[in-house]
Order: sequence, then structure tokens, then C-alpha cells
Amino acid sequence: MEKKVIAFVVYPEVTPLDLVGPLQVLKPLENFGPFEVVTVGERLEPITTDLGMRILPERTFADVPKPFALVLPGGVLGPIQAITHEPLMAYVRSAGQGAEVLASVCTGSLILAAAGLLEGRKATTHWSFLDALGQFGAQPTRERWVEDGKAITAAGVSAGIDMGLALASRLAGETVARSIQAIIEYDPQPPFGAVDWAWVERADLKRSLLTPYVPAIQKILAGRPELLAKLLP
Amino acid sequence: MEKKVIAFVVYPEVTPLDLVGPLQVLKPLENFGPFEVVTVGERLEPITTDLGMRILPERTFADVPKPFALVLPGGVLGPIQAITHEPLMAYVRSAGQGAEVLASVCTGSLILAAAGLLEGRKATTHWSFLDALGQFGAQPTRERWVEDGKAITAAGVSAGIDMGLALASRLAGETVARSIQAIIEYDPQPPFGAVDWAWVERADLKRSLLTPYVPAIQKILAGRPELLAKLLP
Repeated sequence: MEKKVIAFVVYPEVTPLDLVGPLQVLKPLENFGPFEVVTVGERLEPITTDLGMRILPERTFADVPKPFALVLPGGVLGPIQAITHEPLMAYVRSAGQGAEVLASVCTGSLILAAAGLLEGRKATTHWSFLDALGQFGAQPTRERWVEDGKAITAAGVSAGIDMGLALASRLAGETVARSIQAIIEYDPQPPFGAVDWAWVERADLKRSLLTPYVPAIQKILAGRPELLAKLLP
Repeated sequence: MEKKVIAFVVYPEVTPLDLVGPLQVLKPLENFGPFEVVTVGERLEPITTDLGMRILPERTFADVPKPFALVLPGGVLGPIQAITHEPLMAYVRSAGQGAEVLASVCTGSLILAAAGLLEGRKATTHWSFLDALGQFGAQPTRERWVEDGKAITAAGVSAGIDMGLALASRLAGETVARSIQAIIEYDPQPPFGAVDWAWVERADLKRSLLTPYVPAIQKILAGRPELLAKLLP
């Protein structure tokens, strides 16, 4: 039987936890159905991340022109560079239009939206970029993950694990998804409990998080004022 | 000021989420104190993982002989091969003895224990290897993460995120740790709630998880009957 390929797109300065959370969740689907789960990059060369370590993908975009599912992890400066990089955007548009599932983690949804794939769809992203997501044509929705038609988008970074489990359940059933949850022991006990969003507001964390990146964002988008206006309205 | 190096040890067939969970949590400590957070491998060559993609560490063992903290991610066959690989074990013993913090995720604690670093200490690991951990001289404890002296060990795979936040709080204070939690949006909402351990027991998941690996474990440890007896008692 022909495999249904679940392709995780990697690109420079990706956030590894965005990638690895749902990848660790979805890889076992290879044991439960006609799935093949791979990482794809523009070239088979080491890709920088925001953690120092680099990643080597298994396939190129050209190797996987028609994936069953396309998954976009996010980052901070990575996705902003990505939306200006035509080889990546051409792949996301083409593979995404044909895919039966479009998934993202964190600011990966900005890449899907910039490719025109989330037009009018409910979607989410990291809380600090929700407004920007709306500028790119999606309907920003503040949930841990959001499903709208073929799109399933997760909130920031670690939310990719929850989204991955929801997607695993859709593709292979709840029993498989619950088994995977037990195997990766996703039984969270954050030391300080859930995120205290009132505390985040009081600490003005959005400003302190984004402000240091503004000059770099302006530099990356110097020749693309229409994108800059959407990202830093 | 001399940097306090937090060294994440990578080795063939490591489980990426074990590595990347606490790495994504602890990397931002570089902005909040005299910390440097790096991945270390035996060589600067691509390292296989249990997900297909490979990882390129930034430093070699020889580059980082005396880390402030040593972090061991786990895996399935990876750690079993690791405890038979003397260059890695020599590094773990030597760097671990001098380190002020010994951390692990999942079966990474088996490597620490096999190196003699958890003798008599309370520690944890993936639920399917808790008995084996006791065979290697630690006091197995079923918690999300366990602190005993300089050792802080996490349960399976995703538990490294919780452990990382606890360690971040110890090293840089609760405000920093809570900020990192918000940045990685660790506000878990597993689609089926917490792991239902009674369901895991009923599904006999430990047996179905480990049985397929038994022949490979026996092969890896063919010349090391004393290790085989501890891992598959």
C-alpha cells in the first residue's frame, strides 16, 4: 500500500521543541497504519536551530512533493526569514494545497498563513503573535490547539505535544493515541501549576519577549514592507 | 566570569524529546546568569536518534571535561548501547563526579546509575524501567521528577520539561522559571486528560512496549551478562 507521508518541515532557526514534540508523538503511527513520518528540508544539510544544536533532515522538499500531511514547527526569527524564502514558501504552498492535513506548532501557523493556506480559517499560534496571525488572513483563536477543516494548529512550543496527540487520535484512533501518551509519559505536573496568564500580563512578558527581536525583524523584512506591517503593526 | 556549563550528553539512538524538552527550558538561562547550555557528543558528527532525523552536537566530550551540570537524556536501545560504550561511560563518570548537578530524563538515569553516580540515591526513570533502575543501585521512586542531593531525575520522555522547569527555578529563581514556562507555553491540556495508569495496566502496555525490544537488548548485551541480568531480570 502507498504510504501516507507526514512531512515535518525544518528550516533555519527552527525551535526544536516545536518540531520534536509532535514528531515524537506521531512517529509511532508508523507501527499502527500506512504512515511514514519524516523530516524534510530544502537540502540534506545541517540546519541551525535556536538551541545551538543542528538538525539533519532525512529528505528534501523535492523528495516529498505530495505529503499526506504537512507539519510546520515555529520559532522566533526562523519563521520570519522563512516567509521571505521563496524555495520554502513554494514548497509549503504546493505541498500544502495537496495535503489532507495541515498542521502547525507555535509560529509555524504564520508560515501556513503567509502561504495563503489558512485564509478565513480558525487557527492559533504563540500568544505573542496572535494579532499578527490575524493580519495574515486567519481567524486567530486562543486555544491550546484549533481544528478547522484540514488545518490543525497549536499554540506555543509545548502545545505541539497536545496537538500531536489530538492528530494521532484522528489518524489512528483514541486507543493508539492514549498508548502513545503513556509511552511518552505525558502526565504533566508543571512545578508551578498551569501558566498564570494574569501574572504574564502583569510582568508585561509579551513586550519583554518581543522587543529585543524588533531590530532583527525589521532588518530581515527591510525589503518586504507589506510583511513588516503585518508582523509589527 | 567563568561560565557554568550545562552539558546535555547526546549518543546514538537518543530520544529527541528527552533531550529537547529540558534543553528548550534551560537554554534561556544563558540570558539570566553565568550559564552556557550546550550539547556534547563523543565526536562532532551526526548522531542518530529514534526519530529518523539526526542531531549535530556543538561540542565533544573532550571540549567540556568539567561541566557544572551533566544532563542525560534517554531512549530505548540507545542507553543500553551507551552503558556498554566505554568512551561515553568514562566521560559520564568523570564529568559526573565533578558536576554540581546530575540530571536525567527517562532512561538517562540508567546511564548515570550504571556509571555509579546514583548509588543509594532516590531516582526515577520511565515507568517501564523502574525495576531495572533499582538493579543498578538507585532507589527507584515513582514521581514526575525526583531530587536527591545533586541528582535530579525525571520520569519518561515528556517529564524532562517539568524537571527542566524545577531545575531552572533552582538555578535562576522561580520568576525566571515561570517566565520560561510562559514562553514555551507549557500549559498542558492532553486531549484525554492525564495518563490513566489503570488503563495502562489493563492494556498490559509494559509488556507490549518492551517485548519487541528483548531480542535486540539480548544481542547488545551478549558479552555483558551482568548488565543483561540487571536490565531483564
